[in-house]
Amino acid sequence: MLPEKTIERLSMYRRVLQTYQDNQSEFIYSHELASLLHLTPVQVRRDIMLIGYTGTQRKGYSVRELIEKISQILDGGAQINAVVIGMGHLGKAITNYFNSKRSKIEIVAAFENDSTKINRIISGIKSYHIDNLEMLIEKNHATIAILSLSPREAQEITDRLVFAGIKGILNFTSIPLNVPEDVYLENYDMVTSMEKVAYFVKEKIKK
Amino acid sequence: MLPEKTIERLSMYRRVLQTYQDNQSEFIYSHELASLLHLTPVQVRRDIMLIGYTGTQRKGYSVRELIEKISQILDGGAQINAVVIGMGHLGKAITNYFNSKRSKIEIVAAFENDSTKINRIISGIKSYHIDNLEMLIEKNHATIAILSLSPREAQEITDRLVFAGIKGILNFTSIPLNVPEDVYLENYDMVTSMEKVAYFVKEKIKK
Repeated sequence: MLPEKTIERLSMYRRVLQTYQDNQSEFIYSHELASLLHLTPVQVRRDIMLIGYTGTQRKGYSVRELIEKISQILDGGAQINAVVIGMGHLGKAITNYFNSKRSKIEIVAAFENDSTKINRIISGIKSYHIDNLEMLIEKNHATIAILSLSPREAQEITDRLVFAGIKGILNFTSIPLNVPEDVYLENYDMVTSMEKVAYFVKEKIKK
Repeated sequence: MLPEKTIERLSMYRRVLQTYQDNQSEFIYSHELASLLHLTPVQVRRDIMLIGYTGTQRKGYSVRELIEKISQILDGGAQINAVVIGMGHLGKAITNYFNSKRSKIEIVAAFENDSTKINRIISGIKSYHIDNLEMLIEKNHATIAILSLSPREAQEITDRLVFAGIKGILNFTSIPLNVPEDVYLENYDMVTSMEKVAYFVKEKIKK
């Protein structure tokens, strides 16, 4: 298993390489890839060595081959089905965003407790009452849940998700959640990002 | 200036402490705070020492005092004004989210190029045509910009923001941006978070 930070960077490399490829470039040097992502060339070479790929000294990495190699690592295996809990603006934004990309991850169902949002197609997927959560996770073989609901209900819903067999949670609610060790939890935290920007802006203005 | 990772953790400590305080707890030990956030007690103690606060061995940290101390660091100084570029579902979600909290950061204006979204109040703030960007950043003394627009336009708008005096950018567009050294850029990347969850879920299922 690769380290978390390596997986993060592989995901970023691939996205940058895809843009690079669209611009008809066949090869890229580690220092070019590094500079596009504000990393060091050593870091880039180490990550790419970890996935068993090597470029040539003269030309660098083949963009196409490197994208393929990263895709084998990130997308390898079967399609992964995900569910979204909470179809406010954030739930809709997430669903539009992911399902508009070709990807091995597909959002297959949404859950709500607001009756005006139930049994309707929202952002291209069917939205169900939260009571059907366990049944539909099983039926759809969903293994990932995206939480974009109110923080108040987040832990209770998380417990139900884990019990229903969810193995990975992407938490947008800004509160810490408890999950068992065999469930992977990623917190995607807007408040912290914003507070970081604000702090460094203040420091920059001071100078 | 404190390190980025420390600022991130201070933001998370404060959020957890606020919930803790709501539950009427007066004191918290470093190991308790650490366990709520899946960190080590050593890490927590080091961060809190860095901001010049100390608890007592017997009782731990005073929750109220620690929140105050962190708030001095994160919120100290004047209010910070921010603008949002792009009022799709994501822009609306972000605006609702931040302006519903008491915070030193306030979103004061939104910008769009979709004529159905211009000169209207959306999610509680006025939305303007993107042509007015420079003028309104200056008028509002905005120093932070939140990018929730299409990736295609992101770099061009970023250049305009920097030129207009923006000092911090929170980038939701999933493409890397170039900014000068005196501008702080934070990438908030949904795709990477989702790909990380998917990778670790696959590894967990394999086992």
